[in-house]
Amino acid sequence: MDDIYVIIGVSGCGKSTIGKLLADRMGLSFYDADDFHPKANVDKMSRGIALDDEDRKGWLDILSLNMEQWQEKGGAVLACSALKEKYRQKLSSRVNNPHWIYLKGNFELIEARLNERSGHYMGSELLRSQFDALEEPPYGLVIDIEQPPEQIIEQIMSKLKMENRSVFGVYGLGVMGASMSLNIADKGYELSVYNRSEGEEKEVVRDFLDKNRNYTNIQGFTDVGDFVESIARPRQILLMIKAGPVVDIVIDQLLPLLSEGDVLIDGGNSHYTDTQRRVELAGSHGIGFIGAGVSGGEEGARKGPSIMPGGKKEDYAKVASVLEAISARDASGSACCSYIGPDGSGHFIKMVHNGIEYVEMQLLAELYALLRPEKNNEEIARIFEAWNQGPLSSYLLDITVHILRKKEDNHYLLDRVLDRAGNKGTGSWSSKVAMDLGTPNGMMTEAVFARYISSFKERREYLASTLSQDRGNFVPVELEALERAYEFARLVNHQQGFQLMAKASKEYNWGLNFQVIARIWSNGCIIKSNLMNELRTYFSNDEDLFMIRDIREKLVSGEASLVEMLREGLNRRVSLPCFTSAYQFWIDSTTRNLPANLIQAQRDFFGAHTYQRTDDPKGEFHHSDWN
Amino acid sequence: MDDIYVIIGVSGCGKSTIGKLLADRMGLSFYDADDFHPKANVDKMSRGIALDDEDRKGWLDILSLNMEQWQEKGGAVLACSALKEKYRQKLSSRVNNPHWIYLKGNFELIEARLNERSGHYMGSELLRSQFDALEEPPYGLVIDIEQPPEQIIEQIMSKLKMENRSVFGVYGLGVMGASMSLNIADKGYELSVYNRSEGEEKEVVRDFLDKNRNYTNIQGFTDVGDFVESIARPRQILLMIKAGPVVDIVIDQLLPLLSEGDVLIDGGNSHYTDTQRRVELAGSHGIGFIGAGVSGGEEGARKGPSIMPGGKKEDYAKVASVLEAISARDASGSACCSYIGPDGSGHFIKMVHNGIEYVEMQLLAELYALLRPEKNNEEIARIFEAWNQGPLSSYLLDITVHILRKKEDNHYLLDRVLDRAGNKGTGSWSSKVAMDLGTPNGMMTEAVFARYISSFKERREYLASTLSQDRGNFVPVELEALERAYEFARLVNHQQGFQLMAKASKEYNWGLNFQVIARIWSNGCIIKSNLMNELRTYFSNDEDLFMIRDIREKLVSGEASLVEMLREGLNRRVSLPCFTSAYQFWIDSTTRNLPANLIQAQRDFFGAHTYQRTDDPKGEFHHSDWN
Repeated sequence: MDDIYVIIGVSGCGKSTIGKLLADRMGLSFYDADDFHPKANVDKMSRGIALDDEDRKGWLDILSLNMEQWQEKGGAVLACSALKEKYRQKLSSRVNNPHWIYLKGNFELIEARLNERSGHYMGSELLRSQFDALEEPPYGLVIDIEQPPEQIIEQIMSKLKMENRSVFGVYGLGVMGASMSLNIADKGYELSVYNRSEGEEKEVVRDFLDKNRNYTNIQGFTDVGDFVESIARPRQILLMIKAGPVVDIVIDQLLPLLSEGDVLIDGGNSHYTDTQRRVELAGSHGIGFIGAGVSGGEEGARKGPSIMPGGKKEDYAKVASVLEAISARDASGSACCSYIGPDGSGHFIKMVHNGIEYVEMQLLAELYALLRPEKNNEEIARIFEAWNQGPLSSYLLDITVHILRKKEDNHYLLDRVLDRAGNKGTGSWSSKVAMDLGTPNGMMTEAVFARYISSFKERREYLASTLSQDRGNFVPVELEALERAYEFARLVNHQQGFQLMAKASKEYNWGLNFQVIARIWSNGCIIKSNLMNELRTYFSNDEDLFMIRDIREKLVSGEASLVEMLREGLNRRVSLPCFTSAYQFWIDSTTRNLPANLIQAQRDFFGAHTYQRTDDPKGEFHHSDWN
Repeated sequence: MDDIYVIIGVSGCGKSTIGKLLADRMGLSFYDADDFHPKANVDKMSRGIALDDEDRKGWLDILSLNMEQWQEKGGAVLACSALKEKYRQKLSSRVNNPHWIYLKGNFELIEARLNERSGHYMGSELLRSQFDALEEPPYGLVIDIEQPPEQIIEQIMSKLKMENRSVFGVYGLGVMGASMSLNIADKGYELSVYNRSEGEEKEVVRDFLDKNRNYTNIQGFTDVGDFVESIARPRQILLMIKAGPVVDIVIDQLLPLLSEGDVLIDGGNSHYTDTQRRVELAGSHGIGFIGAGVSGGEEGARKGPSIMPGGKKEDYAKVASVLEAISARDASGSACCSYIGPDGSGHFIKMVHNGIEYVEMQLLAELYALLRPEKNNEEIARIFEAWNQGPLSSYLLDITVHILRKKEDNHYLLDRVLDRAGNKGTGSWSSKVAMDLGTPNGMMTEAVFARYISSFKERREYLASTLSQDRGNFVPVELEALERAYEFARLVNHQQGFQLMAKASKEYNWGLNFQVIARIWSNGCIIKSNLMNELRTYFSNDEDLFMIRDIREKLVSGEASLVEMLREGLNRRVSLPCFTSAYQFWIDSTTRNLPANLIQAQRDFFGAHTYQRTDDPKGEFHHSDWN
């Protein structure tokens, strides 16, 4: 902790004794201020002349310079009477918040001790003048000296612990954990951080503290007990660890160390069903558990992410001030962090956020694929840049412009990137949940499968080599149509995402508020966009975007443009899975009679699964012999 | 069991005594054969004249007629000396396999007993003549009479149990269980069937037996202990119960009743991961567990389904003869049932079977949707009927022709079926597994989502009402193009399904044989088709159909037809999700450079996820500052 402890008080209060014991206990060096007087002062004193404040100034200067060095070297304990406030200010001029420990006793007690110590009567004049000069500090620790030294040391240690307690803890100093920690520290909170120190992580905490020496409000720990103990109750501990079984292991590790009313916050990408389970588990131990989705990448975590906390409302109330302080701000300056709903709802909407993100990325990739045969990267960048000035603007469109323009050795870097897309396995969660909830979300699924297909690079190359490469002629794409098609597909993407949340909200009785969700996604996160901002307003009318006339009119008028784009995809032999899926979803959603009657008839034919009839308003189920 | 028990043996062996006790024990009526002599015989005997075989003939006739009635009424016990084989043949002429119980004792013992019974010496001549006439039966139970009657009864009961043991048991008499049971009984196996008798299922077993009185090889049980006890070891028990937690409950119920080496077969649609777990669990108790997918619907189960058994090979060996006997036959007469592979592999391929089935159904629905605006049901039926004569023939195409033609009150019944498709939740399993395994199977997913979208009927109707219904003009569809597009899409569907199995086979080390799988799907199941038969041959060349030149040439030459069809879909505002997905998959699979490089660049931009480079043959991961 590299701290400086200054033991102050009048002569005879026990500064040296206590100081030495304390230094031993803390493994620090002990210094006596009297040993640092400049020669002039020493001479003066040896001649029996009292020092004045002018004399003391140089001495205090020397001391403060030494204290600065001690702090850099790991801290120290200094015994120094420092009776007046101005001396203390001088002493603390070069170091960060030294700990003041004032040994307090009454005149009679100290006089008796001084007499006892010297073995003869000392005279009370000197002591009286010290008491006259004494300005008791309104800060620091006050220790009653009428106890044995050992007891005094225990009291100091205990009070220091209390004094140093952080208001917040971060467990895990990976890229995201470190960024979140600095973000929290930036907001002025006293913070404890923990990382295990095993194997490759041996030096993680030390390195983090070394790199961030300018933060005096961060305490680092490699012992989880000390870490928990260092945080004031009710504790707020943010887990920034890999989602999955590790979270359960860490919860098991922490539960016995926590006190009732403490709150754990899982800031990782946990699956919402795990969070549902963990809220229950922690709750059964009297511990709050908040599953908080965090979006924004490393930069967002550092400067202000979008945060989606779910769990018990009363638990969120305990952690709201820190989480809201560190989050991004929306257009009106409010925090992009707000209570989402019970149990796993925060992680659920983070999952859907990622699904929407997959689609937004894939839509840009499909536009790029369609334009690539006739335009170079700079030309495509210029088209996207123009779109990004208007209602289509978004973070992902913006970075795509940068990516298209990025050069390396006078070559477009993008052209050197292998077309084999990765994924972290969590991308498919939304699709799988949509299947379980009976909510079609073809676009997210197509985006996932598009990445999968890209991974079979060698097979693609071989199969391509077996085909004739003559793709015929194609007409240049109408950019205006592309722009409208893009607007169309993005609307459908957001509709599918929000409908998935609406279904889950009903299923789990979460009472999600989509205006709030669109608002906290309007900044800080990867899918922040102008559209997201607009949706805040739309959701005041209806949860179902297709039920909003404005949106529907955009889709109706954009349909022809999208069809034109899809035709051009067919012409160019460019696959446009997400754009196509948007189109199909819109068509199916607005088609009175789908061919599902044939499916039902088939099911009834071979499996006697029964069917409903158009001429039976009661909706009963019928079975026929179809032969 | 409606059985007739005939107690035979010489005079004095104890037929009446034992017969009465046994009848009491079994709750049956007891009859003494001597009470059935016709008047002529009674007269003759009263005159002291011995009966000859001619006299006995009428008497045995009367007995056999009575026995027939007794059997119809629930069974009976008959005491009848029946010393000669020809008498016994006469007696059994009208009933099914009476149980012969021969009370055996030596001359001296019986002579002594006869003397004791009458209280005076009877003379040994009559008894000697009986022993002379006696032809001991080489069948039935032989009971030593030198034991007390109670002990004799216990021995008979115990031997009857052994004698009656079934070779196979079916647990669960729902639609599929009942059909499978009759199928097994048809093949001549002695069968025990069980169903609980609670609530609505109170009369299930009784009703089943009543309805199937002509099957003498079926024993019914409502006590699970008796059911298990009735099956010969090593037991083979087929569970035909609802997939899900019920299967675990039933396994828990059966495990303590089974003996080491017995085999359970789960014939339901269990998820393969559950089966993996259950194979382990049962194995730890020394019990075999076979997860067997069964396809063919009720009719298939009754007449010959396609069966896909997975589990330990040595366990399959114990149940192979019954399962193979009851399954459908392929073109060369072999059973459409064959060992698939370890643990959950049988249920896995059944799951994929259902995924392929979903797509095959949806493809027909899309063709119907596209043709509907210009053709009536009969015209569409004629088109499909023509296709069904050639290489496109399949069970589903065949039933679709029937469905299209089916009329009710002079109206097409199909037109009265509500277009809201159902699903049993298992349809999405393949898609979810494909996501976990990183295998794109867009067609199955689109087929699932198409059903989901159809379910929002009211919303569709409302949204349709807000749109202009003018769809412009369209040109008639070129039927030849449709046919080729259909062929194309079916090939891709099968490719996606088999590739999913190939991926799972590698992942779980199952060693699946796709020739075998295509073969057992060539009959008995819902997706049986001419194509499936062809695939048997193709799979001898490669697991990956796209790597087979013949298949690829079909796809290459069909691509233009499919594009034509998709264009017509766009013209007609008819959504063709599965056909489109087939097209996209083919395009993506044969495209050298996909736009996934942009996705990778975006991921590296905002999340430092790194990317591979085209100019780095080592495939290392790089990170760039894209700003």
